[in-house]
Amino acid sequence: MDLLLDAPWIHTLRFLIEVAATIAFALSGIIAAARKRMDVVGVCVVAFVAAFGGGTLRDLLLDQRPFFWIRHTGFIWGLLALCVCAMLFMRQRHFKPTERAMLLPDAIGLGLFAAVGIDTATAVGMPPIIAVMMGVTTGVFGGVLRDVLCNEVPQAFSDHRPYALCAFAGGWIDVALRQMDTPPWAPLLACVLATAGLRGLALWRNWELPAWRV
Amino acid sequence: MDLLLDAPWIHTLRFLIEVAATIAFALSGIIAAARKRMDVVGVCVVAFVAAFGGGTLRDLLLDQRPFFWIRHTGFIWGLLALCVCAMLFMRQRHFKPTERAMLLPDAIGLGLFAAVGIDTATAVGMPPIIAVMMGVTTGVFGGVLRDVLCNEVPQAFSDHRPYALCAFAGGWIDVALRQMDTPPWAPLLACVLATAGLRGLALWRNWELPAWRV
Amino acid sequence: MDLLLDAPWIHTLRFLIEVAATIAFALSGIIAAARKRMDVVGVCVVAFVAAFGGGTLRDLLLDQRPFFWIRHTGFIWGLLALCVCAMLFMRQRHFKPTERAMLLPDAIGLGLFAAVGIDTATAVGMPPIIAVMMGVTTGVFGGVLRDVLCNEVPQAFSDHRPYALCAFAGGWIDVALRQMDTPPWAPLLACVLATAGLRGLALWRNWELPAWRV
Repeated sequence: MDLLLDAPWIHTLRFLIEVAATIAFALSGIIAAARKRMDVVGVCVVAFVAAFGGGTLRDLLLDQRPFFWIRHTGFIWGLLALCVCAMLFMRQRHFKPTERAMLLPDAIGLGLFAAVGIDTATAVGMPPIIAVMMGVTTGVFGGVLRDVLCNEVPQAFSDHRPYALCAFAGGWIDVALRQMDTPPWAPLLACVLATAGLRGLALWRNWELPAWRV
Repeated sequence: MDLLLDAPWIHTLRFLIEVAATIAFALSGIIAAARKRMDVVGVCVVAFVAAFGGGTLRDLLLDQRPFFWIRHTGFIWGLLALCVCAMLFMRQRHFKPTERAMLLPDAIGLGLFAAVGIDTATAVGMPPIIAVMMGVTTGVFGGVLRDVLCNEVPQAFSDHRPYALCAFAGGWIDVALRQMDTPPWAPLLACVLATAGLRGLALWRNWELPAWRV
Repeated sequence: MDLLLDAPWIHTLRFLIEVAATIAFALSGIIAAARKRMDVVGVCVVAFVAAFGGGTLRDLLLDQRPFFWIRHTGFIWGLLALCVCAMLFMRQRHFKPTERAMLLPDAIGLGLFAAVGIDTATAVGMPPIIAVMMGVTTGVFGGVLRDVLCNEVPQAFSDHRPYALCAFAGGWIDVALRQMDTPPWAPLLACVLATAGLRGLALWRNWELPAWRV
């Protein structure tokens, strides 16, 4: 197990998932901004907020500095390039990335961001309920801030499909495993698998969250 | 007077008002989210933001940690229970808490939250105008953030009934009493009474704030 | 050159531009709030957010305290007086400050706020890309937060006229001059002139930013 922990491919895998999730979240921002007929500035800002807003809000609340995108400014350049490419490419081809194609990286990213958020909160001594909340915030509030900037009711609150709730459930599994004597990679992996699995199950089975009849 | 200050019922009273105000603010969030047909996740998040958003924004601006809801995680569990109960109860009975029933705890809560905000700002050495602003922020911005998440123009800015202004007036009374040689409970009490009294008077007399004819 | 740097009129000029820009940004908030038929509380809050929101967000992200408006509380009193005067004056005269009259202080203010933001970020050791981002944030996010409070899609993202992009270009000139052996007032001046010049050119020539055809 220790071998597994120290294996460099684990870190490579985590990094690759992180990049894929950031791209998926940024693409969701590009699409939302384009739907509102924003210009290139709006597209870049909304993509940035969708990709980094959740983690930045978490770090603001936990008073953690520097932010992810300040430590790794390469991500900012990559994001700008992604936005420009997306605009050029999609103007020419009238191509729209299907939401379906983004569901998988989005679901895995949600789990990974939740696990990263829990890790950060636990490292500064937060109790379990706060750690889970920070995990959900990391995964969900990028999309919430994206929708606020686009002047929409946040999709995560109103499309009645389980999303934040999957991260909430995955987060408690993560926290529970941390209490036990597991190797350090186990909570991360369990959180990603549980969140993405629940999300996939919810989409496949068309689960609906209860709403309030007014 | 010293007896009064040290009397445990003072602290109990303040705590009870604080709980009542938090519940009133959370209920306003639940109702606003339900009107937008949000799902259970949206209802919980909006209720949370309505109840704790003002104090959290104040602490962010003043760089005070930990937040109220991180120090007292019991409030988070209570809020989740309140949301679930409200949804179950109101689905069955088609019952809507009348706005009228919430006016009293809301008005007292506004005054108390303002006094708590002024206390926090004064304790870190802020000048009077900033202390009063932080008091108003604590009382009002929970509702403002609630309305932003619900994609509405904030009610506190546009319903033309004095609300923030009552807290502003009560806040200056609080600050003035702090300058004098009064016992420590006097500013709190005066702020709550003045704010709630002005708010009640404004509602009873149908006072209207001037707007701008465009 | 050293004489120029130490000359008191340089500081007076910078201060006067700063006051003019703050007034221009506050007026944009007053007009936006009045269009939404907000009451006097809404007008004051939106004017405050438009004038100080960008710098406050930058200082939150960079963890810099105290904020500008806490260090100089005189600006708060001035802003309140401006709001009350604007409401009284405009109610009587049915007068609306033409957007055209505000374009000049707004353009110079954008450049100055960008330069101040870059200065703040550089002083705490941020890399160039972050410094430029913080400059653009200082100049642009006051207006973005104003539009979010007014429940509008932010104008800076959707009116297809270069605004943030002018500050972005001016910001890189500022950062480039800082790398060279120039006197300390040169980057500030170059950033203001380049930003305001580009903005003026864009308005004069009716430049349009590319949007995304969906």
